[in-house]
Amino acid sequence: MADMLLKPDPDDARLTRRVRGLDQDGKTIETAVVVERPLTLFLNGQEVVTMMTIGDFPDYLAVGYLLNQNMLRPDDEITGIDHDAELEVVVVRTERQTDFEDKLRKKTLTSGCAQGTVFGDVMEKFDSIRLDPDAVLKTSWLYALSKQINLTPSLYLAAGAIHGCVLCAEDRPLIYMEDVGRHNAIDKIAGYMHLKGIGPEGKIFYTTGRLTSEMVIKTVQMRIPILVSRSGFTAWGVELARKADLTLVGRAKGKRFVALAGEHRIRFDSDPAAVEEEGARHQRKGSLVEDAV
Amino acid sequence: MADMLLKPDPDDARLTRRVRGLDQDGKTIETAVVVERPLTLFLNGQEVVTMMTIGDFPDYLAVGYLLNQNMLRPDDEITGIDHDAELEVVVVRTERQTDFEDKLRKKTLTSGCAQGTVFGDVMEKFDSIRLDPDAVLKTSWLYALSKQINLTPSLYLAAGAIHGCVLCAEDRPLIYMEDVGRHNAIDKIAGYMHLKGIGPEGKIFYTTGRLTSEMVIKTVQMRIPILVSRSGFTAWGVELARKADLTLVGRAKGKRFVALAGEHRIRFDSDPAAVEEEGARHQRKGSLVEDAV
Repeated sequence: MADMLLKPDPDDARLTRRVRGLDQDGKTIETAVVVERPLTLFLNGQEVVTMMTIGDFPDYLAVGYLLNQNMLRPDDEITGIDHDAELEVVVVRTERQTDFEDKLRKKTLTSGCAQGTVFGDVMEKFDSIRLDPDAVLKTSWLYALSKQINLTPSLYLAAGAIHGCVLCAEDRPLIYMEDVGRHNAIDKIAGYMHLKGIGPEGKIFYTTGRLTSEMVIKTVQMRIPILVSRSGFTAWGVELARKADLTLVGRAKGKRFVALAGEHRIRFDSDPAAVEEEGARHQRKGSLVEDAV
Repeated sequence: MADMLLKPDPDDARLTRRVRGLDQDGKTIETAVVVERPLTLFLNGQEVVTMMTIGDFPDYLAVGYLLNQNMLRPDDEITGIDHDAELEVVVVRTERQTDFEDKLRKKTLTSGCAQGTVFGDVMEKFDSIRLDPDAVLKTSWLYALSKQINLTPSLYLAAGAIHGCVLCAEDRPLIYMEDVGRHNAIDKIAGYMHLKGIGPEGKIFYTTGRLTSEMVIKTVQMRIPILVSRSGFTAWGVELARKADLTLVGRAKGKRFVALAGEHRIRFDSDPAAVEEEGARHQRKGSLVEDAV
């Protein structure tokens, strides 16, 4: 794991809080809980959205959110990102005048939620994206990735109630982000990739969260051809993945997994019988519950 | 469980879809995945929001959402609820002219997301609510509820990737709803309670999801004094629960649980040592992963 570019920092005191309470025996205990704080995002002069986040990477989150919502174009020049921790505000400035304000004002007449209106644009772009048909997922990589990610110290293991997303290349986890919402974790990775110039070629995306339509859309937007999760599927997630020819692997725990789209990219180079089942600690991870008294 | 008023119907063919894929051995399998579909909500003439839902109870979801967002007052007379499954639209009509349209139009000038602006109103009301200080949670009820809920056939056990919420009285689960989003499951229960005239007195709210600020706010809005979850906490959820004197119990699995707010309502009438740990099937439930081939 020496070559991970970014991994969780469970010792960062800003991200968890220690609180007192009672356990099942009526005994006073102290436990760590994960922090969620509001962050209001501005694009140039326009207030866009207020997100609930752990707040570790406001800059990556802001840029990734704007990219995944098509409010920022990949070729837009970002002239500044200002974060004010006290005001809980992040402002992204671009050279190009963004037209989001007009778009928003026009569309709110027909729809109550800005998120919903933007969705329309996103789907148009979704249909035009072609993912690399020659990308490959070896099952040996899949097993190696799951194991390394589960063993990496994380906020999840320290405090629970959090989702993780990991950008991987072959059998190597590269960027491991956590957040209270899985959409934030994926947006932070999108922002990191954009700002550091990391492309989607040869990448695999891993998430602890469910494979919903939203996760599939964001992965395709990021042009990553393979999406893997410990959790389950929704029917619309499967349908969209098939439409985009995204390789969609879910319920990946221990030796087991199920692929429901883009199966042609999978190379079965491992004998599942030789793969260890997950230990108790891994099972707790999957349960999204962890005491840390 | 004979007296549950409403429970999941995993045999309802509209709620899951059977899809084909490959398992870890490269073998073709068929598995059930849960359906998510858009539902656009109108209040009188005003389009409010598009929600992603399994779509089993559009009427309860619509009314519960409007109540929990303070767009509908508890004393508003509902004159009609029309659901068009083909158009994926539900319209709630009231006698009183609702003022949501003006409110929305005015506020979108300062905030990009209608959800965010409504939040302000909701917090004002939150501060004024007093929960019943004399309500009680016996630990024997807590253990009995967890066991009954885990053993009830559900979409979760059939297809995974779904959240459950249960309204309970003492040791009895009354209304058990599931949905792709835990906020939808809780809104459906709020709508059911309102339309069937079920009050919050003596009730306990159980959820499979995390105890975030949103879950705490909705439970308090519904005036239910006790919230229990299998999952973990966020710091803001704990803070809000303490402010409202909501009894907040999390990480409730087998004999274990942690209470981080409103501990004074808990009566320790069980010996945790005598409580069975959860079996493998329960552990799978907690993991939000379930094969159903």
